[in-house]
Amino acid sequence: MKFVIIGGDAAGMSAASRAKRNSPEMEVTVLEKSMDVSYSACGMPYNIADPLRDIDDLIVRKADVFREQNKINLLTGHRVDKIDPVAKTVSGVIISCSTNSSDPNSSRTKSNTTNINQQDIHNKFSYPFDKLLIATGAEPLIPNLPGFDLAGVMPLKSLEHGRAIKSYLKSVKKAVIIGIGYIGLEMCEALKARSIEVVMVKPGSQFLPWMVPELAKVVKQELDVNGVKTYSGYKIKKIERVRVSDKKDNNNLLAVICENTISNETLILDADIVIVASGVKPCSELAVEAGLETSISGSISVDKSLKTSDDNIYAAGDCADAVHVVTGEKCWIPLALRANRAGWAVADNVCGIETLLTGVAGTAVFKVFDLQIARTGLTVKEAISSGFDAVEVVIHTRSRAHAHPGSEAVHVAMVGDRKTRRLIGVQMVGKDGVAHRINAAAVALHLKMTVEDFFQTDLAYAPPFGPVWDPLLTAANQLLKKL
Amino acid sequence: MKFVIIGGDAAGMSAASRAKRNSPEMEVTVLEKSMDVSYSACGMPYNIADPLRDIDDLIVRKADVFREQNKINLLTGHRVDKIDPVAKTVSGVIISCSTNSSDPNSSRTKSNTTNINQQDIHNKFSYPFDKLLIATGAEPLIPNLPGFDLAGVMPLKSLEHGRAIKSYLKSVKKAVIIGIGYIGLEMCEALKARSIEVVMVKPGSQFLPWMVPELAKVVKQELDVNGVKTYSGYKIKKIERVRVSDKKDNNNLLAVICENTISNETLILDADIVIVASGVKPCSELAVEAGLETSISGSISVDKSLKTSDDNIYAAGDCADAVHVVTGEKCWIPLALRANRAGWAVADNVCGIETLLTGVAGTAVFKVFDLQIARTGLTVKEAISSGFDAVEVVIHTRSRAHAHPGSEAVHVAMVGDRKTRRLIGVQMVGKDGVAHRINAAAVALHLKMTVEDFFQTDLAYAPPFGPVWDPLLTAANQLLKKL
Repeated sequence: MKFVIIGGDAAGMSAASRAKRNSPEMEVTVLEKSMDVSYSACGMPYNIADPLRDIDDLIVRKADVFREQNKINLLTGHRVDKIDPVAKTVSGVIISCSTNSSDPNSSRTKSNTTNINQQDIHNKFSYPFDKLLIATGAEPLIPNLPGFDLAGVMPLKSLEHGRAIKSYLKSVKKAVIIGIGYIGLEMCEALKARSIEVVMVKPGSQFLPWMVPELAKVVKQELDVNGVKTYSGYKIKKIERVRVSDKKDNNNLLAVICENTISNETLILDADIVIVASGVKPCSELAVEAGLETSISGSISVDKSLKTSDDNIYAAGDCADAVHVVTGEKCWIPLALRANRAGWAVADNVCGIETLLTGVAGTAVFKVFDLQIARTGLTVKEAISSGFDAVEVVIHTRSRAHAHPGSEAVHVAMVGDRKTRRLIGVQMVGKDGVAHRINAAAVALHLKMTVEDFFQTDLAYAPPFGPVWDPLLTAANQLLKKL
Repeated sequence: MKFVIIGGDAAGMSAASRAKRNSPEMEVTVLEKSMDVSYSACGMPYNIADPLRDIDDLIVRKADVFREQNKINLLTGHRVDKIDPVAKTVSGVIISCSTNSSDPNSSRTKSNTTNINQQDIHNKFSYPFDKLLIATGAEPLIPNLPGFDLAGVMPLKSLEHGRAIKSYLKSVKKAVIIGIGYIGLEMCEALKARSIEVVMVKPGSQFLPWMVPELAKVVKQELDVNGVKTYSGYKIKKIERVRVSDKKDNNNLLAVICENTISNETLILDADIVIVASGVKPCSELAVEAGLETSISGSISVDKSLKTSDDNIYAAGDCADAVHVVTGEKCWIPLALRANRAGWAVADNVCGIETLLTGVAGTAVFKVFDLQIARTGLTVKEAISSGFDAVEVVIHTRSRAHAHPGSEAVHVAMVGDRKTRRLIGVQMVGKDGVAHRINAAAVALHLKMTVEDFFQTDLAYAPPFGPVWDPLLTAANQLLKKL
């Protein structure tokens, strides 16, 4: 059996490793266009924050380990350009190695199998498959506007992006971040940790539109306290390189030209670096061209076994959709746990171990300076547009028991459905004990728990870790009054 | 309607306050034998650790606030000696005020209602009730052995105990703690924080018998590192007061005389203070004498509405039993959240708002120096003796993502049932991110979730807060292989 995988990141390498564990005799080939596989993409902002850490610390397992220990035919620098679902082949070109490598002799050397050397000569390759996994991930949304191709205007998605930013930062004093999402906010903290002045700007008028305003305000305050200026409601018009004559050491600045969406006033933000963090889109072009079905945001449509509309082709990771456990509908929430889990599930299914994934709850957590921000399930707006009779409460409580030192404010927003009385979603913000608390609500969402039943759960209590009534229980109690 | 409550701690005051909120016209009387109500008993070790904090900081709401704002007829210093379920009365004596009060003019003054002044004259009282709540709590188990009545031999359960210990500690250099449970371990940390030498001793041969040995070892190491000597397998024979002639400043030491349960060798541990933390027992004598049914460990038997075997009498808090959500059987797990929740439920039921409590999962967390120790559900031994075909795995993972700074070891033990494939229990130990992680498993237990389904839950991930696969998911994955 020939199992071919396009993409060597979380979903792809999880699938490859598990397939070889399940069926050591299986021929598993991974075609990765970059020279990097198996790295912690989510760790990049934290690595960038520390100039003493090597960015390649983020590599969890080196390519050669996959090749030698796991016996995976891992081919880096192989860009797939076409999937032929009828002939059951994938084809593409071998692209040259990146030159930015900090260690060109390790994971970046070409594979030394005879097969590859032959392909290398022609610079093209074609592989037959019995089962194919598309794990092409997502790519940053780069606005099609003047100046986004200038040096110093950089997205952050791949390790190569991370290397480029980290190396560029050495001479940076001032940064503009376009976009205020997870990556933008994490990068904001990273840059401030390196004493870089940070300004954030976004076209939407709401600072964090998916977040309950009362909670978004707490996040905004954290940015204010840390000296980060944010501009919401400013459309980006272009980026220009400008010469600043009075600054000898920095005479080649970038200028982000923005326009207030209401007043039309122009705002010019200058910077040494511009981080483009305006969101991502699924890399589903190959699938579309192969005639596979797509769904939300153009992601590849898969069933619970991760199979696409073609019986022999699976998709997993940031390029594929999922079922949302709250709505039962398709959604596209590209996050790392789902990618790893989906990779495993594909490998199991390909190896004849039937595995169906129930779906995602959209659970996410991130850090902005000292704040922990977490969510699971739907916002009240999402719930209403999914047909729920949704109501919401926001409560403000403490992270530790009455009079216990180190107690911090915890803000919880909780959404329930009047018809079914189900718990629908939770958002939390606070400096202490938010990150892992959200998981209790996530588990409840998977089993369609009512708010009543959730309120009855026996959650842990000790004074250093929470009040007797956990913030989630206090929120549930308030929500019950509205249901 | 006359609603009488015996006991003014967590369950009692929760019930009283909620009854008055539900039905302001209801006559609610609380009879509390001590002078303290509504304090954070669990906070006592942390308060004792800090000589600068007043122990009365632990009082959440003062007695006078309950009287004046909540209009509760709160009678402190009222010890109930008898419940007559037929005549529907409770009777007892008014006992003198404690003299240790740090603020004798506040919550400790007697009530000024005419009724009480009359009772006071006779030093006896009797109250009729329509509905009665027994919320008498639990009391420390004091071994019936010579020397446990000596000055300096002290339990910790009530605020009065806390006051006594805190005041006694001023001249203490060396402590022996009898018992190695939650309270013993928390007190051990508190005393070390005050630079007091601590030795712990217990009769059982296993250090923490309810904990998986691999995890118990981690706790033991934490005590070792912090210079706490522990003796397991030493039966206490007696405590003596000994004169030590060569120590002018401390010539009146206590000696705890112990005997090794295997070798019979004698061990003498000397100390300035002996903390007795050998467990607690439910205060159910009044209920027993009134002919009410009792169950596990002598706790008062209640149904899901918290009603005892008498239609007009409820019991809640540490004196009452509960249903365990994993076994569906009765259990006695006296913890603060259940007490508060049960108090509310009684008030609701008394006020005609039917409320049934589904039960407890035995979720608990505590801290020992830098370690967080948490559990929920059953141990493998408990599971087997409850009829489950139980298997267990122990995994060792990290609290944060690969290469993320601040990552600590996390140890997880997880129990599942081969027959139903249900998740049965979890124990966790670690220095980072253990306390709140346990709640995800607790919710799963309430829903009788299978290990498969739990493994599919969408838990939060970000590098500062965990690995992509949360430690609970990693444990579930390993457990699946054994089911």
